[in-house]
Amino acid sequence: MNQIIAKLGRRLRLGVIGGGPGSFIGSVHRTAARLDDNYEVVASVLSSNPERSKREGLAIGVADDRAYGTAEELFAGEKARDDGIDVVAIMTPNDSHYALCLEALENGLDIICDKPLTTSLSEARDLVDRVKTAGIVFCHTFNYTGFPMVRQAMAMVRDGDLGAVRMIEVEYIQGHLAGLKPDEDGGSDNWRFQPEKAGESLILGDIGSHAHHMARYVTGQDLSRLTADVTTVVPGRVAQDYAGIMFRLESDAPGIMWVTQAAAGGVHGLHFRLFGERGGLEWFQETPNQIIHSRLGAPTITFERDGPDLKPEAARATRIGFGHPEGYQEAFAVLYADAAEAIVARKLGVKPDPLALDFPGVEDGARTMQFITAALESTHTGGWVDYQVAF
Amino acid sequence: MNQIIAKLGRRLRLGVIGGGPGSFIGSVHRTAARLDDNYEVVASVLSSNPERSKREGLAIGVADDRAYGTAEELFAGEKARDDGIDVVAIMTPNDSHYALCLEALENGLDIICDKPLTTSLSEARDLVDRVKTAGIVFCHTFNYTGFPMVRQAMAMVRDGDLGAVRMIEVEYIQGHLAGLKPDEDGGSDNWRFQPEKAGESLILGDIGSHAHHMARYVTGQDLSRLTADVTTVVPGRVAQDYAGIMFRLESDAPGIMWVTQAAAGGVHGLHFRLFGERGGLEWFQETPNQIIHSRLGAPTITFERDGPDLKPEAARATRIGFGHPEGYQEAFAVLYADAAEAIVARKLGVKPDPLALDFPGVEDGARTMQFITAALESTHTGGWVDYQVAF
Amino acid sequence: MNQIIAKLGRRLRLGVIGGGPGSFIGSVHRTAARLDDNYEVVASVLSSNPERSKREGLAIGVADDRAYGTAEELFAGEKARDDGIDVVAIMTPNDSHYALCLEALENGLDIICDKPLTTSLSEARDLVDRVKTAGIVFCHTFNYTGFPMVRQAMAMVRDGDLGAVRMIEVEYIQGHLAGLKPDEDGGSDNWRFQPEKAGESLILGDIGSHAHHMARYVTGQDLSRLTADVTTVVPGRVAQDYAGIMFRLESDAPGIMWVTQAAAGGVHGLHFRLFGERGGLEWFQETPNQIIHSRLGAPTITFERDGPDLKPEAARATRIGFGHPEGYQEAFAVLYADAAEAIVARKLGVKPDPLALDFPGVEDGARTMQFITAALESTHTGGWVDYQVAF
Amino acid sequence: MNQIIAKLGRRLRLGVIGGGPGSFIGSVHRTAARLDDNYEVVASVLSSNPERSKREGLAIGVADDRAYGTAEELFAGEKARDDGIDVVAIMTPNDSHYALCLEALENGLDIICDKPLTTSLSEARDLVDRVKTAGIVFCHTFNYTGFPMVRQAMAMVRDGDLGAVRMIEVEYIQGHLAGLKPDEDGGSDNWRFQPEKAGESLILGDIGSHAHHMARYVTGQDLSRLTADVTTVVPGRVAQDYAGIMFRLESDAPGIMWVTQAAAGGVHGLHFRLFGERGGLEWFQETPNQIIHSRLGAPTITFERDGPDLKPEAARATRIGFGHPEGYQEAFAVLYADAAEAIVARKLGVKPDPLALDFPGVEDGARTMQFITAALESTHTGGWVDYQVAF
Repeated sequence: MNQIIAKLGRRLRLGVIGGGPGSFIGSVHRTAARLDDNYEVVASVLSSNPERSKREGLAIGVADDRAYGTAEELFAGEKARDDGIDVVAIMTPNDSHYALCLEALENGLDIICDKPLTTSLSEARDLVDRVKTAGIVFCHTFNYTGFPMVRQAMAMVRDGDLGAVRMIEVEYIQGHLAGLKPDEDGGSDNWRFQPEKAGESLILGDIGSHAHHMARYVTGQDLSRLTADVTTVVPGRVAQDYAGIMFRLESDAPGIMWVTQAAAGGVHGLHFRLFGERGGLEWFQETPNQIIHSRLGAPTITFERDGPDLKPEAARATRIGFGHPEGYQEAFAVLYADAAEAIVARKLGVKPDPLALDFPGVEDGARTMQFITAALESTHTGGWVDYQVAF
Repeated sequence: MNQIIAKLGRRLRLGVIGGGPGSFIGSVHRTAARLDDNYEVVASVLSSNPERSKREGLAIGVADDRAYGTAEELFAGEKARDDGIDVVAIMTPNDSHYALCLEALENGLDIICDKPLTTSLSEARDLVDRVKTAGIVFCHTFNYTGFPMVRQAMAMVRDGDLGAVRMIEVEYIQGHLAGLKPDEDGGSDNWRFQPEKAGESLILGDIGSHAHHMARYVTGQDLSRLTADVTTVVPGRVAQDYAGIMFRLESDAPGIMWVTQAAAGGVHGLHFRLFGERGGLEWFQETPNQIIHSRLGAPTITFERDGPDLKPEAARATRIGFGHPEGYQEAFAVLYADAAEAIVARKLGVKPDPLALDFPGVEDGARTMQFITAALESTHTGGWVDYQVAF
Repeated sequence: MNQIIAKLGRRLRLGVIGGGPGSFIGSVHRTAARLDDNYEVVASVLSSNPERSKREGLAIGVADDRAYGTAEELFAGEKARDDGIDVVAIMTPNDSHYALCLEALENGLDIICDKPLTTSLSEARDLVDRVKTAGIVFCHTFNYTGFPMVRQAMAMVRDGDLGAVRMIEVEYIQGHLAGLKPDEDGGSDNWRFQPEKAGESLILGDIGSHAHHMARYVTGQDLSRLTADVTTVVPGRVAQDYAGIMFRLESDAPGIMWVTQAAAGGVHGLHFRLFGERGGLEWFQETPNQIIHSRLGAPTITFERDGPDLKPEAARATRIGFGHPEGYQEAFAVLYADAAEAIVARKLGVKPDPLALDFPGVEDGARTMQFITAALESTHTGGWVDYQVAF
Repeated sequence: MNQIIAKLGRRLRLGVIGGGPGSFIGSVHRTAARLDDNYEVVASVLSSNPERSKREGLAIGVADDRAYGTAEELFAGEKARDDGIDVVAIMTPNDSHYALCLEALENGLDIICDKPLTTSLSEARDLVDRVKTAGIVFCHTFNYTGFPMVRQAMAMVRDGDLGAVRMIEVEYIQGHLAGLKPDEDGGSDNWRFQPEKAGESLILGDIGSHAHHMARYVTGQDLSRLTADVTTVVPGRVAQDYAGIMFRLESDAPGIMWVTQAAAGGVHGLHFRLFGERGGLEWFQETPNQIIHSRLGAPTITFERDGPDLKPEAARATRIGFGHPEGYQEAFAVLYADAAEAIVARKLGVKPDPLALDFPGVEDGARTMQFITAALESTHTGGWVDYQVAF
């Protein structure tokens, strides 16, 4: 248990909605909750089929009376208990995030919610307002910002180590949709291929969202305008699987983004490079324990996680010593650990560690919705779209 | 919970001895136990100081009556309970492993124990005999063999994919002892620098042991003879910090090993390369999700964890999809997951998944003790030492 | 000497215009000519200052009567000799390429000419027509296409090994202009910073041209439309130093390009990735002896120069065995060797080796001029520019 | 032409013995001679068959009267000319080096000679004495020391940048003899497999020699003792194809060496790592333009050829700018350029540039012969061999 959890004297009680035993992300969330021993999963809804939901809750070790069949039952059941959940984690199909967040808000719960935030910008705006009004903790799982070396990049830029940012490039080059999937037809069970559940753009909602947030996170700036080419490269596919986007940051520095899931043989491919006046930074998600720092007039250096000369932001997000690699699961759990700090501080009325407050929130989700909206507009019109970040 | 844990209907009850809150390895063990939700840490001894041990047990969330002050109290207390521990994890200084294992054996517990196994070869022999007689599960935490791509290497060699092994090299090149530490004098609190606690050779016990086991694990062969140059390169240091070893495998194929903790600026450096008749394998712990496979007369290929064409042994040791890196903690937890399978199968009297049985056991620990003994003998005599693997 | 040179019975006689002793590219051209022993540099004009030109000709070993003061003298002097030059290599500032090529054509010489071809599209069109009419050999030094592994990529795509190309990305990320240079003001001696000598766009003419040609060379397709963001990121600079470009190939497959000389600490950064139906290719100029081939449903492979399973196109461009790295100079010399084959075949009226005919020609130069023109138009209009490749 | 060649007013006249058109190393030598325009190949003996030798001399462009049939003819013919050769390059089978060097010495020629120096230590000793007495320039082509970043390593150690050297490892891991070759039987035409021509140990003469010299070159120290395991791993092979060697430097710092040509799928594999008090250096021949510098208590840095913060020794060995890779051929030519400086300085009676004098000489060849002799002795006795470096 973290120090702040020790102050609370017990683990946080977590309810999970979505992410049954067969799902990738469900296991990732629950393991993230467990990793640092700050949470206990005590309540669950794991399927849209109530019977299956109940059965699967038992299978992951939830007690019989808290393995709920529906979200409504969960909210009601937990409200009625003295030891009801503190926080809910939402990992359902995209089109249900908004409604579930509203219910959680009504129940005064803190929220951990998967991206994309909603399926429309207006819902996103509304949610930002409500979360701000309620004053709850909202952790939005743009999980790649939990990697210590991404924190290092963000802190170096924020501290001015590179001078003004002059350009940024972000890529996300996956290959898992390089071939047509059997479930891409209209009757598919896979909600990702159903625009009404996943949102208008598969590629932007699924991974373009991460790329946009990464650009924002490490530069500390949102975009001021963009031009986009969002399209489909695999013949026979309905959903979009490719996006090229050029943009300007608020400072007018140019940026470029390349995102696809149709790169045959591609692995993961989340990768950014940014250059400022005095040097650059390059990071690959597939070797996340290093970040490469080029320097004007000096040789390039490689920072190691838990190694010399790191920022406190990177040190806080690290658990294991120098040279023992950490990975995706650990980074995901950093967001859970950050959220735990904020949630417990709110409960106890104390100040949280400021280094824990760099996790993505509801506004970040809304900014990404705005980006997706603008990128699709530009694709339709063929020109640049100016936009004013509203959050 | 794993499938076999579901059959048991509850998590395994784990007692931990050693590894208090300030220790690196203590947190690693407990997180490994928690990661796959197969274990609950229910009892603890965390310090040689009973008061501190109790306090720290409470701090990690152990109940008041099971946060013990001494190992004797833990064994006695747990024996007296209906819900006593199933398995004990031992992560104390090296010189106490043997005695604690004997106590665990007397109490019929399964054992997870850190390396090196003992501080003498005779104790190691004795422990092998007793564990075999008792028929318990003994998991020896040569943790680097939990990495999926190490499993891939082992399985490729075992299946004959490379033909006969013709040579192997193993390195472990760390830098954390490149400078003299303040606690290296006689009155040090750090047991690693005290030969009577850590064993005769710091370098061989600490990381040479891992290098030896890795060579054995991936080739499937022990050594038949060796010549060693174990020495100290940092002036003023008493403990050994460098080992060069040349050896022959049982098949007479040559091998070479380079191990040090005094490589200034070195990170971790566990790395092996082996070549057989038809190709080679190269793996770096610092980028553990790939293994490079050179091929006779064909271009080199890179296998990705959870990617195409892997062995079932590698697939079983994987939790998270292609491209999302796993790290040290996950590999450590693979040994815990393997042990859970073996322990529950023993409890239920069922056959365990054979793919779970590739974890290191007590004989592996004894083989490494034999290796250390031979390496030191060779260093003293300056010649080759033949040895007959007794385990 | 190459086989075809042996048929000729003597080395080709080369005149060089531009590239005095202090210039980077002059030495590169002359070394390229010498490397395979196919050419002798027998005549030269090395400076716009006739006296200096003469002096420098002597310094590089040209005979007194052929170390000319001006290009006019060179063309006249060589025409008058029985042993006059066979071929002229032009490496002067961009704005003189066109006029010098016209003179060379009038003298019936074969031509090796640096990029960009001209400073306007109309000159480029004219030059293509004249070269075609004259039937001479024209080698345009898009030198990065001389690397064996770029030939491998081109041949794999041409042979359909990857299936249809689905997307391509090209980058050229240099850092040498990350800071403002003292000679960037109006009175600069450095012609690169003078738009009237270098052409409208420093970044596009200098390295965007290479990036465009690379995309064309390896895909075998030109562009059908593009949208560009060409700009200046270093405050105080007049010339453009950044270009982001999104485009579609003739097949409508999307592409993206990122080119800059203002990436602080950047080294060279020429890098492409393309993906087709069945796999991808990735190449870095800084490690040019390998190309990485991702495959749909199979592990990634790394082809080595002179290694197994290469195309004859790659094998022909290779001189030195497996594992001994070749570099920039060798790739540049591949174009000279290709040109020698074509020139001698023309002289002898025999068929050249078809594998020697993959070097860039005058049409390639014109296509790149068209690309630059379209990219600047798009930057001014902010929209997509359609274009019909005329060459 | 180099500056010093300009002083001489003509290129050096080079005679080559060995390395006919089909040979790898012959082309490498002649291209190295040509690369910087310091030499002209004017005389040749290219085969042990006089007719073929003559024919091949003509084929590489040597004049009819200087395309000799035998070495005797070459030495005699050139002696008789006013414009006779200045320097002879010897690249014949190992067993002829000694005799040819003696003839060259008698003719007062400077010598460029391939490794290994001789096939016995006594011949090597004799040659060292004769070369010293004669005062000629002797360049021994341990060509990997011509790489700029190897010069960087050597200079950093020499200047004390790392403090005292604490350990070194050198590897040379090739795969081209992983399978048995058809010409390995007794009647083979390939002199490398004939111990009476190649020397007692194929592996040590061929590439172990390079590994030994590299260790010596970068540490500035020879060995004081060693223990070796030189053997054959490919069944059916007569020659040795594997060597493991542990050694101590003169300072008593330990070292380790792993050398083989039987690593299936291996490419080139020349690689060293050394660590001193304050940091380490790591270099791979396959990516020769970088050297990695680990630092005690600071992040690792990567030096780039022609990049910031290099030693003058590295800068002198560089021809082409930052980011344009140089390779094997260029490094080989650095030795030729160094030798040209020394030869012309001797002819003109001027002081050479001291930075040109770091090329390997006859003593280096003799030291490596001593190393080979000691390694074979240790292999036979199974123990450490002490040796006193005599050169």
